Amino acid sequence: MTKPQSWDARAKEYSLYGFTDMPSVHDRGTVVVTHGEGPYIVDTNGRRYLDANSGLWNMVAGFDHKGLIEAAQAQYARFPGYHAFFGRMSDQTVMLSEKLVEVSPFASGKVFYTNSGSEANDTMVKMLWFLHAHEGNPQRRKILTRWNAYHGVTVVSASMTGKPYNEVFGLPLDGFIHLTCPHYWRHGEPGETEEKFVARLARELEETIEREGADTIAGFFAEPVMGAGGVIPPARGYFQAIQPILCRHGIPLISDEVICGFGRTGQTWGCETYDFIPDAIISSKNLTAGFFPMGAVILGPELAGRIGAAIEEIEEFPHGFTASGHPVGCAIALKAIDVVMNEGLADNVNRLAPRFEANLQRLAEKPNIGEYRGVGFMWALEAVRDKATKTPFDGKLSVSERIANSCTDLGLICRPLGQSVVLCPPFILTEPQMDEMFEKLEQALDKVFAELA
Amino acid sequence: MTKPQSWDARAKEYSLYGFTDMPSVHDRGTVVVTHGEGPYIVDTNGRRYLDANSGLWNMVAGFDHKGLIEAAQAQYARFPGYHAFFGRMSDQTVMLSEKLVEVSPFASGKVFYTNSGSEANDTMVKMLWFLHAHEGNPQRRKILTRWNAYHGVTVVSASMTGKPYNEVFGLPLDGFIHLTCPHYWRHGEPGETEEKFVARLARELEETIEREGADTIAGFFAEPVMGAGGVIPPARGYFQAIQPILCRHGIPLISDEVICGFGRTGQTWGCETYDFIPDAIISSKNLTAGFFPMGAVILGPELAGRIGAAIEEIEEFPHGFTASGHPVGCAIALKAIDVVMNEGLADNVNRLAPRFEANLQRLAEKPNIGEYRGVGFMWALEAVRDKATKTPFDGKLSVSERIANSCTDLGLICRPLGQSVVLCPPFILTEPQMDEMFEKLEQALDKVFAELA
Repeated sequence: MTKPQSWDARAKEYSLYGFTDMPSVHDRGTVVVTHGEGPYIVDTNGRRYLDANSGLWNMVAGFDHKGLIEAAQAQYARFPGYHAFFGRMSDQTVMLSEKLVEVSPFASGKVFYTNSGSEANDTMVKMLWFLHAHEGNPQRRKILTRWNAYHGVTVVSASMTGKPYNEVFGLPLDGFIHLTCPHYWRHGEPGETEEKFVARLARELEETIEREGADTIAGFFAEPVMGAGGVIPPARGYFQAIQPILCRHGIPLISDEVICGFGRTGQTWGCETYDFIPDAIISSKNLTAGFFPMGAVILGPELAGRIGAAIEEIEEFPHGFTASGHPVGCAIALKAIDVVMNEGLADNVNRLAPRFEANLQRLAEKPNIGEYRGVGFMWALEAVRDKATKTPFDGKLSVSERIANSCTDLGLICRPLGQSVVLCPPFILTEPQMDEMFEKLEQALDKVFAELA
Repeated sequence: MTKPQSWDARAKEYSLYGFTDMPSVHDRGTVVVTHGEGPYIVDTNGRRYLDANSGLWNMVAGFDHKGLIEAAQAQYARFPGYHAFFGRMSDQTVMLSEKLVEVSPFASGKVFYTNSGSEANDTMVKMLWFLHAHEGNPQRRKILTRWNAYHGVTVVSASMTGKPYNEVFGLPLDGFIHLTCPHYWRHGEPGETEEKFVARLARELEETIEREGADTIAGFFAEPVMGAGGVIPPARGYFQAIQPILCRHGIPLISDEVICGFGRTGQTWGCETYDFIPDAIISSKNLTAGFFPMGAVILGPELAGRIGAAIEEIEEFPHGFTASGHPVGCAIALKAIDVVMNEGLADNVNRLAPRFEANLQRLAEKPNIGEYRGVGFMWALEAVRDKATKTPFDGKLSVSERIANSCTDLGLICRPLGQSVVLCPPFILTEPQMDEMFEKLEQALDKVFAELA
């Protein structure tokens, strides 16, 4: 065969594209990226894009952070790979586990590593099934999550994800139950106060537990702010309303902090921002600032104790990934935590969040923006055909994809999710870069809304 | 709380150990590893171990390979992270996909990246469910594998794995069917020839398909040589006997090459060594020589065409991991493939395999070794209480763990699996290092068998 020559043709010949709108790739070609500069990426044609997506929420220190590059390089020189099986592990692995418990909301705890958030959620489900079976409740297997939640793409973490697109795989599996998304603006009923909306969702949870039987439910997983659902902060008082119900029925609350963790909401954890302490934390993405594939399950004291005791009794926990606790990933994570928390990145998020919000508030005055929502450095603008009735545009118009494509043409990457446009830039963003982001976004919004008028 | 001080105490305080015999860790402590030298690792006490486990089969170029370290460092300096969603991907990703199809047994194909072998198998299952549903066969969901197979630890890949230990999780899920392990020495019936054994397994497959209904079966997954099952090469003619049956019933054959791929069996792929061409390949481990967490699904032309067409019709394949196609992983994999195939590593495997086998043959003469088996640089010695009747030792004696612990005391790491001891050293092993491995192993065998006599 003759090999294709252009980057786009080579990419198309050999790649199965995931999470990609195929008509857009056919029209616009593949963007093949060679390097980055701060929050910008550069493609094979030398085009620069301000990546207000932080890669995939994760490149929070940008695309050429010197300290992180050096930490990775130094660990490659020192010890470029090992596992954490058979009672052996690298020194970096020990140090990172210690650090993760230290910065967690827990007084004590235990850490288990994976290579992704998907694997971490999948692992947490296995841990809960293992624990309940060991404690004499093998029927405690159902998993509660919410519509619009995103927990990953393994069969189990996709089953936890509350998105209709998983129907093409015949998912969710049985036993994965999705509750109402706590998005007051969209799901509050006419005349319903936010307080009453939350009370309704708490009632739904209570009724679901009664209907299914508490003794069939393994755990409840929630992102503090839903990320891939379109940046949806919880309605006020949501976690305070549901946690006591879960607690009363002995259902662990797992905080999926893959996106929120390490500074995205302005505090170290999303559960701090929304003032609850979960039974375990799922971490990934920012954990290594995107420099290495890594996920972690951080068990709080109660689950660590119960699962630990169950493991001692059977003498071996038969679970683990080849690269669990990889020394390079752990060295990078140690540096990333330090960079975010101690080198001004988290501070920058908090310093610029009000400016972020002020800009969104201004754009939200446009007749085709229904609401802006978010916290810290994760925000969304929701497009609507009719602001008063909150009526969305016809789905066939692909309004958010058009806005995102117009942004890309202007050198700005942002993410279309449903009918909203998501902004989650790297934490290193400066004021002029923020201004650039909003100027380009406004140009794109005005263009697309004019076309659709 | 007061922080624990020793490495062992720190590891125990914060880690949930996976695939670890807890009584051994309590007795012997955690081995905390700081660095490596060729095929050796060194712990915090300065102890050196020849790692005949290659980490976990994967560190095939050893623990300080200069070329791989430099490739990783260079890519970190160039572009330290990106994704492969939304029609964007790094240049390294494009180049690796091209290379993987080039070195595959396929004339053409398409590549999808994950972070592990577990995720790659899980992804392949999702792809098959997606494909069959799209082609009007949504009931085609059952997965066939074999007892003793190892395919990973996500809920689905653990369900594919044929190991009794997964019972503690309430696994396998329904619809995962395990056939007889093709290990002639252990599972051949008295007086049954190897040819008749294979014919029996082929009949079992045919009968299973008839019983379940071919139109309920999504695919058949097999490691060419079972790795974590205890290094079990297939009985002679096994794949030639089963592939036509699968083919007749329209059931794709997926070769799980996580362990076998890239040189472990002496050829690039295990399917080459055993002379069959599968419908897709699952790769991981050696793919990056253990320097980065990465998995890949490599679809052959037929599946690439059918799955590709299905994706075009629905316009988006809703699957992908954040670090799928990570530029650093891809740059490392490109270098690792080159190092293994063109810098003498695969040659070394083939050069030293006869010497490997001759040593095993000699050790297999001992009265408590039932058989030796393997190929290339993956071998096992199976301990037995009675050689003539192949009667194993009492499980409570933990014979293989005792041998492995005795080896560790002598500075050699090898892996106990069932009642066998597995040797899968890095491909860089020299003759003196091989001699050291066998000297230490023989010492350990003699010590343990004397104790048990």
